Amino acid sequence: MPYDYLVMGTGGHAFLPGIPGQDLEGVFTLKNLTDAIKIKRYINEKQCRKAIILGAGFIAMEMSEAMRRHDIETTIVYRGELPARKWDPEFSKVILEELNNNQVTFVPHTKPVAIEKGTNSLLRLVTDNGEMDADIIFMALGVRPNARLAKEIGLQIGETRAIHVDSSQRTSREEIWSVGDCCEVYHRVSGKWVYMPLGDVSNRQGRIAGQNISGHTVIFPGVVGAQSFKMFNLEVATTGLDEKAATRNGFEPVANIIWGNPIAASLAKSLPDPRKLGIKLIGDRSTGKLLGAQAVGTENVVSRINVLSVALWSELTLDDIGYIDLAYSPYFSGAWDPVQTAAQILRRKL
Amino acid sequence: MPYDYLVMGTGGHAFLPGIPGQDLEGVFTLKNLTDAIKIKRYINEKQCRKAIILGAGFIAMEMSEAMRRHDIETTIVYRGELPARKWDPEFSKVILEELNNNQVTFVPHTKPVAIEKGTNSLLRLVTDNGEMDADIIFMALGVRPNARLAKEIGLQIGETRAIHVDSSQRTSREEIWSVGDCCEVYHRVSGKWVYMPLGDVSNRQGRIAGQNISGHTVIFPGVVGAQSFKMFNLEVATTGLDEKAATRNGFEPVANIIWGNPIAASLAKSLPDPRKLGIKLIGDRSTGKLLGAQAVGTENVVSRINVLSVALWSELTLDDIGYIDLAYSPYFSGAWDPVQTAAQILRRKL
Repeated sequence: MPYDYLVMGTGGHAFLPGIPGQDLEGVFTLKNLTDAIKIKRYINEKQCRKAIILGAGFIAMEMSEAMRRHDIETTIVYRGELPARKWDPEFSKVILEELNNNQVTFVPHTKPVAIEKGTNSLLRLVTDNGEMDADIIFMALGVRPNARLAKEIGLQIGETRAIHVDSSQRTSREEIWSVGDCCEVYHRVSGKWVYMPLGDVSNRQGRIAGQNISGHTVIFPGVVGAQSFKMFNLEVATTGLDEKAATRNGFEPVANIIWGNPIAASLAKSLPDPRKLGIKLIGDRSTGKLLGAQAVGTENVVSRINVLSVALWSELTLDDIGYIDLAYSPYFSGAWDPVQTAAQILRRKL
Repeated sequence: MPYDYLVMGTGGHAFLPGIPGQDLEGVFTLKNLTDAIKIKRYINEKQCRKAIILGAGFIAMEMSEAMRRHDIETTIVYRGELPARKWDPEFSKVILEELNNNQVTFVPHTKPVAIEKGTNSLLRLVTDNGEMDADIIFMALGVRPNARLAKEIGLQIGETRAIHVDSSQRTSREEIWSVGDCCEVYHRVSGKWVYMPLGDVSNRQGRIAGQNISGHTVIFPGVVGAQSFKMFNLEVATTGLDEKAATRNGFEPVANIIWGNPIAASLAKSLPDPRKLGIKLIGDRSTGKLLGAQAVGTENVVSRINVLSVALWSELTLDDIGYIDLAYSPYFSGAWDPVQTAAQILRRKL
């Protein structure tokens, strides 16, 4: 098929552990709308009562809430110690509590070995830590780029194994653009091209490619790594680099966690769930700049991470953030926002 | 009394219209904790049934909600056409609707002439537009700086009539600092010293003065004019300059309003009050930079204005904001946040 230009949006696919039985009926990935439709149909047809989720990232967390809403007994099986390992262990413990509070069983330090047809339930998961029954099993082990076609036609592939693009979303071949979960994206904080398969990033890339193809020169300014999810009564969000990534990228990270009120202290007691807002900031010792942030809580968590995302975008220092001007009213924060307090405290540690 | 240094925190006072009867029992200002205590006592003692609020700024809006919560018949009397005139008339109309929905009567184009003792009620308000009964009358007509003492000892007073300070909060006399509602603050967008008597600003000024007095050189980086209030089911917020202020400060403002969803469209229907989020952006034609923003809606309004406040702080352009990286999840926004959409649309109008 002859073409003037081509946009490669081959997407990503769910990572599979490569264990026997992973293709049995009742084992699902969580990537596409088709997955969702198949899952709904299967749950209804088979009257599923028990689910196992492999993995403990944000998709696993969201899926556990979806299962509990359908009153399905839910177990998360994970090779590590705590869920949501992108976040600080102090926050992951809050997330684990939230799972427990909502009757989700979390089984740590456990790897799947095989999936078999079950006897008590429809399926049986064999692990290095015993066997478990389930009617449905979800693979929430991460996403990998679909870059095979790109590789076959000789496009440059990045170190992340995703398609290499420039800031106009053009690949190494002049007439081919690429957008979405198959390609890399520029991370403004690390200065590296990374793989970050997120829906909002794909949307922005698509618009950038479209504008460039239609003759407008528009540069995709990159991402700072902002992301969030909701699970039960918790909001969880992060932006920028964690300490490990910061060190790997040549920074000298210093971090601190504070627990504050999502709204004015005098009103916080009246919240339906008056748990504190936890904010972790990571700063760079040599420049005093913010490098990253994480937050967890019941209210106004994502809004704080968005403020910090713009701060990262603009390379603000902790000095700036400590005195940043926000729209104060007791219903939305204290006269000192936890973001300001966190920045001031971390500043003194640098 | 001899001293090494002095901090002048003389505060502000409520503006009074200078009409006969403004000092009658039952007429209150809304500035201090003492006002609140007196008001509560008076309402209880006198079994107040009817209140009139003079003024239609954010304090008047907040007071109207407080009165309605006590089931007191409430009327707002205002010389202008619409409430909350800091905001675009399109948004002020939404605010007016919210007043009406909550049984607050709004009387426009009306000036107070006198207050008298009443017959049907405890008080009578005489206006250029007829008389009205009330048991309690509130003066919410703005705040003025208490700068008399400063003037008397010869401190420099700014054009705003508030005390002039520098970025360390020092007045024109080396050993005197000043903070709070009596002094000016630097506005980063206009580059001018302005009067902005807000609680969070005072807090920041206080900390800056304290640090400088104790020997640390710390600069107050100023404000961008972020502010917000809640009234009934509405969040209302603004930051930066409106078109008038922008023109006055030598910019060439171009503005646009969009109405979007506070969370993903697919989930917005499930909100208790699924009204749209309105965002107005004001940009500068010659530089492409953001100059100001306003927003109104039922959810996640202040969080958007905070994002835009950091953008203003960092002098971001509409190009930047159109592709800014925020922590997307359907529970907190669409894959395109209304902030991004608003910036892209305004960008095309420049």
